[in-house]
Amino acid sequence: MTVSREVELQGHIIDSGMMQTCFGIIMDMGGSFEVEEFDIGRHKDERSYAKLLVSAEDEALLQSIVHELHQNGANPADPNDATLEPAPADQVVPEGFYSTTNHPTEIRYDGEWIDVEDIEMDCAVVVEDGEARSASERSSSAERSRSRDGDAVSRDDENSRGEFSNHSADHSSGQSPREDGEQSEPRDGENPYADTKVLNAVEAGDLIVTGEAGIRVSPPERPRGSEGAFGFMQGGVSSERPSETTIANIAEAVEEVKSEGGTVLAVCGPALIHSGAREDLARLVREGYIDMISAGNGFAVHDIERDLYGTSLGMDTESLDHPRKGHKHHIYTISEVIREDGIEAAVESGTIESGVMYECVDNDRPFVLAGSIRDDGPLPDTITDAVEAQNAIREQAHEADMVLMLSTLLHSVAVGNCLPSTTRVVCVDIDPATVTQLLDRGSAQAVGMVTDIGTFVPILAEKILDD
Amino acid sequence: MTVSREVELQGHIIDSGMMQTCFGIIMDMGGSFEVEEFDIGRHKDERSYAKLLVSAEDEALLQSIVHELHQNGANPADPNDATLEPAPADQVVPEGFYSTTNHPTEIRYDGEWIDVEDIEMDCAVVVEDGEARSASERSSSAERSRSRDGDAVSRDDENSRGEFSNHSADHSSGQSPREDGEQSEPRDGENPYADTKVLNAVEAGDLIVTGEAGIRVSPPERPRGSEGAFGFMQGGVSSERPSETTIANIAEAVEEVKSEGGTVLAVCGPALIHSGAREDLARLVREGYIDMISAGNGFAVHDIERDLYGTSLGMDTESLDHPRKGHKHHIYTISEVIREDGIEAAVESGTIESGVMYECVDNDRPFVLAGSIRDDGPLPDTITDAVEAQNAIREQAHEADMVLMLSTLLHSVAVGNCLPSTTRVVCVDIDPATVTQLLDRGSAQAVGMVTDIGTFVPILAEKILDD
Amino acid sequence: MTVSREVELQGHIIDSGMMQTCFGIIMDMGGSFEVEEFDIGRHKDERSYAKLLVSAEDEALLQSIVHELHQNGANPADPNDATLEPAPADQVVPEGFYSTTNHPTEIRYDGEWIDVEDIEMDCAVVVEDGEARSASERSSSAERSRSRDGDAVSRDDENSRGEFSNHSADHSSGQSPREDGEQSEPRDGENPYADTKVLNAVEAGDLIVTGEAGIRVSPPERPRGSEGAFGFMQGGVSSERPSETTIANIAEAVEEVKSEGGTVLAVCGPALIHSGAREDLARLVREGYIDMISAGNGFAVHDIERDLYGTSLGMDTESLDHPRKGHKHHIYTISEVIREDGIEAAVESGTIESGVMYECVDNDRPFVLAGSIRDDGPLPDTITDAVEAQNAIREQAHEADMVLMLSTLLHSVAVGNCLPSTTRVVCVDIDPATVTQLLDRGSAQAVGMVTDIGTFVPILAEKILDD
Amino acid sequence: MTVSREVELQGHIIDSGMMQTCFGIIMDMGGSFEVEEFDIGRHKDERSYAKLLVSAEDEALLQSIVHELHQNGANPADPNDATLEPAPADQVVPEGFYSTTNHPTEIRYDGEWIDVEDIEMDCAVVVEDGEARSASERSSSAERSRSRDGDAVSRDDENSRGEFSNHSADHSSGQSPREDGEQSEPRDGENPYADTKVLNAVEAGDLIVTGEAGIRVSPPERPRGSEGAFGFMQGGVSSERPSETTIANIAEAVEEVKSEGGTVLAVCGPALIHSGAREDLARLVREGYIDMISAGNGFAVHDIERDLYGTSLGMDTESLDHPRKGHKHHIYTISEVIREDGIEAAVESGTIESGVMYECVDNDRPFVLAGSIRDDGPLPDTITDAVEAQNAIREQAHEADMVLMLSTLLHSVAVGNCLPSTTRVVCVDIDPATVTQLLDRGSAQAVGMVTDIGTFVPILAEKILDD
Repeated sequence: MTVSREVELQGHIIDSGMMQTCFGIIMDMGGSFEVEEFDIGRHKDERSYAKLLVSAEDEALLQSIVHELHQNGANPADPNDATLEPAPADQVVPEGFYSTTNHPTEIRYDGEWIDVEDIEMDCAVVVEDGEARSASERSSSAERSRSRDGDAVSRDDENSRGEFSNHSADHSSGQSPREDGEQSEPRDGENPYADTKVLNAVEAGDLIVTGEAGIRVSPPERPRGSEGAFGFMQGGVSSERPSETTIANIAEAVEEVKSEGGTVLAVCGPALIHSGAREDLARLVREGYIDMISAGNGFAVHDIERDLYGTSLGMDTESLDHPRKGHKHHIYTISEVIREDGIEAAVESGTIESGVMYECVDNDRPFVLAGSIRDDGPLPDTITDAVEAQNAIREQAHEADMVLMLSTLLHSVAVGNCLPSTTRVVCVDIDPATVTQLLDRGSAQAVGMVTDIGTFVPILAEKILDD
Repeated sequence: MTVSREVELQGHIIDSGMMQTCFGIIMDMGGSFEVEEFDIGRHKDERSYAKLLVSAEDEALLQSIVHELHQNGANPADPNDATLEPAPADQVVPEGFYSTTNHPTEIRYDGEWIDVEDIEMDCAVVVEDGEARSASERSSSAERSRSRDGDAVSRDDENSRGEFSNHSADHSSGQSPREDGEQSEPRDGENPYADTKVLNAVEAGDLIVTGEAGIRVSPPERPRGSEGAFGFMQGGVSSERPSETTIANIAEAVEEVKSEGGTVLAVCGPALIHSGAREDLARLVREGYIDMISAGNGFAVHDIERDLYGTSLGMDTESLDHPRKGHKHHIYTISEVIREDGIEAAVESGTIESGVMYECVDNDRPFVLAGSIRDDGPLPDTITDAVEAQNAIREQAHEADMVLMLSTLLHSVAVGNCLPSTTRVVCVDIDPATVTQLLDRGSAQAVGMVTDIGTFVPILAEKILDD
Repeated sequence: MTVSREVELQGHIIDSGMMQTCFGIIMDMGGSFEVEEFDIGRHKDERSYAKLLVSAEDEALLQSIVHELHQNGANPADPNDATLEPAPADQVVPEGFYSTTNHPTEIRYDGEWIDVEDIEMDCAVVVEDGEARSASERSSSAERSRSRDGDAVSRDDENSRGEFSNHSADHSSGQSPREDGEQSEPRDGENPYADTKVLNAVEAGDLIVTGEAGIRVSPPERPRGSEGAFGFMQGGVSSERPSETTIANIAEAVEEVKSEGGTVLAVCGPALIHSGAREDLARLVREGYIDMISAGNGFAVHDIERDLYGTSLGMDTESLDHPRKGHKHHIYTISEVIREDGIEAAVESGTIESGVMYECVDNDRPFVLAGSIRDDGPLPDTITDAVEAQNAIREQAHEADMVLMLSTLLHSVAVGNCLPSTTRVVCVDIDPATVTQLLDRGSAQAVGMVTDIGTFVPILAEKILDD
Repeated sequence: MTVSREVELQGHIIDSGMMQTCFGIIMDMGGSFEVEEFDIGRHKDERSYAKLLVSAEDEALLQSIVHELHQNGANPADPNDATLEPAPADQVVPEGFYSTTNHPTEIRYDGEWIDVEDIEMDCAVVVEDGEARSASERSSSAERSRSRDGDAVSRDDENSRGEFSNHSADHSSGQSPREDGEQSEPRDGENPYADTKVLNAVEAGDLIVTGEAGIRVSPPERPRGSEGAFGFMQGGVSSERPSETTIANIAEAVEEVKSEGGTVLAVCGPALIHSGAREDLARLVREGYIDMISAGNGFAVHDIERDLYGTSLGMDTESLDHPRKGHKHHIYTISEVIREDGIEAAVESGTIESGVMYECVDNDRPFVLAGSIRDDGPLPDTITDAVEAQNAIREQAHEADMVLMLSTLLHSVAVGNCLPSTTRVVCVDIDPATVTQLLDRGSAQAVGMVTDIGTFVPILAEKILDD
């Protein structure tokens, strides 16, 4: 028995590859289709429209196919409202829950399309109607994400959140107008509200979208050559492109984001310090071209070790002298910061006098240090709980208009997981496999560069600050 | 002003490279030396002895040089007792603390040399004299490492430690005679006791070794071709060696360790599941050739997803059908295990019926799942706190006689950080950089193999189980 | 001033990505377009048709755009005959010559569309009309490509071409019916004939296609899941796929090609020998699953060294004994083969008794050994001249229905350069960058696998020969 | 039956690792040893001496062991003269021929030790006594190496050697005093003379050294920190070192070599052009910091394409515009140079006006372009025969005092094969496997850097030329 459903595509459905992708999905998954309507945009600025009748031999297969089409921007024709089911328990989703993409998404509720806030991949969509919501806590995004860890005690735990709590507090208290502006409207009393929740934030009774009905996904289109500084970002990984010209383009893109009032997040790996790029990164933080830092414990320790002892993992990064494999300075550095009770205190006491972490504190740029099982120490500022760290990372990711991923796979993946596909991403690593993996997430405005972070950052800083 | 100190080397100081290393250290660091005595072993089985007078232009430099020599097995002649200073605060080490290597180490206390227990890299050495110790808690190694997290509540927290607590409890309650045997003696009432502590486990008042005096480090010598199954492990990374023969040698080494009653720990990355090696790894666990598993949340989820849905990240691993990029099964899998309240419960209820995690539970093999900021979920069994996870990993690492590092850099580094240089290590990855990085830790009996984990595990299982 | 031209697309222009590519080209290059006609295939088996009016601000830009569209399958509407201009000198092309893709191509000559023979990338198209052609030498493809080296002497030079001349002669004399069948028709007396020529084969006066008019390119469509053994080859590089299942699919594809009477060419790097895969590759040659070998001097020397001395680069590949870095056996091996006057003679005299080269000689499978500046020796069979070697490789490539590229970048690129996009290609290497580079050539039926050649070949041989 | 032989070691036998290596060889290969004498250098500047009695169970094994010891600098005590045997035929070595290392080597002839000229790896040592020699052709090194190809015709073939013949001719006619000075003495009439020959240069009757007697190998010692600009080159590959500081050190090393009148050879891959480093490399050639270029056909074509069309593989390297995958400019470029009859002619006619090849011609810096089976064209200047190209490369390699290997594996290996272990080598590539492979050849003064050639060359040029 053959079952069928109509789906619609609209927009630059040819140019974006959406139509090709959908045809491919249907055929690869063993379905068939008929093109019932096709209205092609005659010029490059006109949008196209297509209606397909998708068929499969049973309902289960049809549902799988329609699910995949959905994820790629094909939406059911004549939609119903989204189906909502309550979560049966904390951290448990109902059967058939809808798993999000990172593309802009709307759901149909009571006959109206409403945007899903803070879209990111692999989440559930939770809907609150206005009544319920207006009665509930009007938390800021920061508080919402923090509340996901379900651990009331840790919320105020100065030790585990360290410096970041202080800095991030500034956001919730109003310094982030974009965030507040976004949120004030949909929460206005009686309006329904749709939001993403990662699995561990789901609470029993949350109304969760299931099935495919009443959901609209809009994969973004790639920018073309003429559209601003990110126009150059078409070709994905640029290992065969002129390095200096590519860095100049990235510099221009950073300047463009800043000139539009945007926020730049740098995700930093320790190789950045070993390779001698620390001073130039610190300058970019000081001069306001990097607004937030996301890193691990090791990055901060190496940065501060350089300040306290002039070494990185025991090696003098200027003279290359004494390249012994000693970790002693590394452990000492952590011990000293613990003695001072954290990075901010150590900056204020004058113990730490330079570097990336110093500039963050001195210029009030928030940072998140996420712990890992590789860490020495860790520093008091490092968030050792993975779920709590993810929430802090999520908050940064949602605020960023541009993300520079600088030679760290682990932290870049963690940030990337929380980004909508519309955020601009620059990904730099010397390992092409890392760059490819990071770009392969459906971001519309992403560029990768396979280069040496130790030459990339100095040239970037020179082009932004000195030219 | 020139200052000098005498150091001694003994053992196979030529063949092990120790003497060359020491000469190199002195010259690279700007010191000079005189060979005061040299008594060479005339045959390959005789040990050599050398006494060097090391000189430098000031005491600080001399101390740096002697520190480095120490780390490589050259010990001060006519030693004094080790210097002990109390830790000034929790997680703070005294000035000039001695940072450990991963080589067997003794310290001189009250004129006697005593072994440092559970040696691992980058730790402090803490000494308790017998009186103090006999009055204190006689904790097992498991408890000691757990006590490092300084969090009394989490120790019994079923949720955060999950399955591992149960399984590991079996160890502490007597199933691990080696561990208990080791520890019972040195703690006998009045004997002094020296142990390593990572920084976060240091407590105010701990007596910590500082300086270089009274410490003896014994870097192990590499095995030669004729010495058992690990004799083949001479050449480090073997990308240019015959793959099947190398795997046969590793199989033989595993069998040798097992026949001697040793314990094999497998550190597993998710690529193991994607590449189709799951069933063969599960067989090795079931048949008792792998005693413990160390992995991340993702590994366990992929393994269980394969059982519940027949897919890995949405792809059918047998038919290669439906290679959509869907994460839905992945999230579902976690949700199901949460609903069941953990992996052990899900095995017992019959929800999970096969795979690596299934065999671990069914055959009572302990596992540690360490969380990271990349995780979905996580599973209730995953230890999300990095410090707590390190402690669980440390406990496994100290119990292992052989470690198989199977296509995961993050978890292998975490385990490797806790290993003494005498533990046998096999490191397998398709990325030569990963293998090189993991081997570059001074293990005496380590072999690396650059190969495809998806063909390695099946061939290994065949050679161990079917030949 | 805006200039315009009409182009047409037909076939599965959506599913193949052709339409998206063309829209992208026009916009990226600064042109614009209008869709004048669009007739979409309503089902998956129906072909579509589109006519675009492409516009640009000047003729030069328009020509560049149309050139690019052409290369991707968009052909001018209402075409004229192709423009032909004589080559001004040997190895010199006329201004504006048409540079080929590797896709099936036709040119319009005297109002008729004729196929371009032996299509490969980056060549000129040379047309002979029937009169001229019937008077000229009716050479076989083998002779044509050989004639490109323009060196009459070397053609019969037994020393420089060695074994291959003998073996390949068998092909031209009729053992390759496909080849002969293809060629007999278009050469029939008065028919015009179009062929590709690499630059160094162009002779003064050759009639060469210039401009874009009268050329039709047909990029092939990718096979879908259900279409034969190569249906699985959709996803490009499969580093995250189940290894054994993927190898089983490749085995099935080899068997399918053989059962259809096709020809399998293996391109082999020396890692194949070091990694212990020699015996299994030799079995595949002996049993007729590999019909031709393309390799370098080093591959053959390592293979024969293993036979003569039981070592590969001085290491015993079974026992792993004596892993000294000696090259002595390597040089000796070459010296011995030179003394015997070539591989075939050394097989016939009984000096070489096993291995890949032995099986090639014993079973009359032609091989090409191409020299490089890295070589020791070389062997008398190695073709040291790069142009002559390319011609021998070209001949093999044109005969192959399936190419296995086994852990060699240099030789695989050389073979790949000569392949039409319709040839099936399997590319295996442990370095993902190599696999990506080799697949990135527009082949419609190509699959890459990142794995260890030392486990791949044994498993492949087992699946083909033993299952 | 046990057989024994005495060997001697002298020099910094501990610090160089020589003694450790020798102990390891004996034990790994199954022999045993007794240390009969050991006189250790008491200070770092004193040389040591050791005499070992090496034993094995049979003569064949003993000979293998002694062979390996030899290659690593342990020489037989009480040596006899070297054994000489005539080559039985052209390109055939006598049984038991001695295969060279790349370390400085002497042979004992008529009771005297004479240096082996032009030492390189994997060669035979050919001895001429003075009488024979004085009667024979007194060829320069250039002519000697050229004579190895055994092809009298090609020697004067302007077409196949192209520009290099002209430039290299300048060397043989006296512009290379170092070369002449070296050679004038040992050829003085009656003196015996020892030289290396690669296999294909061996002629019937050549007197070739066999066995191990009468040969002395002196592996060089690594420089220490304080010894000049190359002192920093201790740690091999520097992926974790500060990039800018490392480049500054390399710049200083280049300047040091030039200030001592030395010769710098750059081995260049095409990535250098794609990545935008062309102009800065051209400056270094123009200003005399690079004396010779060794590259492939592709490098030269990309360089000239940039000059003629402003593109590299069809992409504008400044604006990044039109990044189409077209090869048309590439083929055109070759065609144009063929029309002009070579690069020198095209420079002189004004067709080529800038770039690396332009500066080579304009400033009389010799270049070698070696062909490969990947090439398009090739250019008339490209040496397509691998043996002839090796000879041209060998000549360059022997003249160089410092070699910069810049992002090409194939050409760097070819050059590296011809280098003595005393030549300074800098190896730069973005792929760590390439750098490791190139450094792993026993050079005493080699440094590798894993970085982006597109940022490396501009920073190097700035530090050398602008600071």
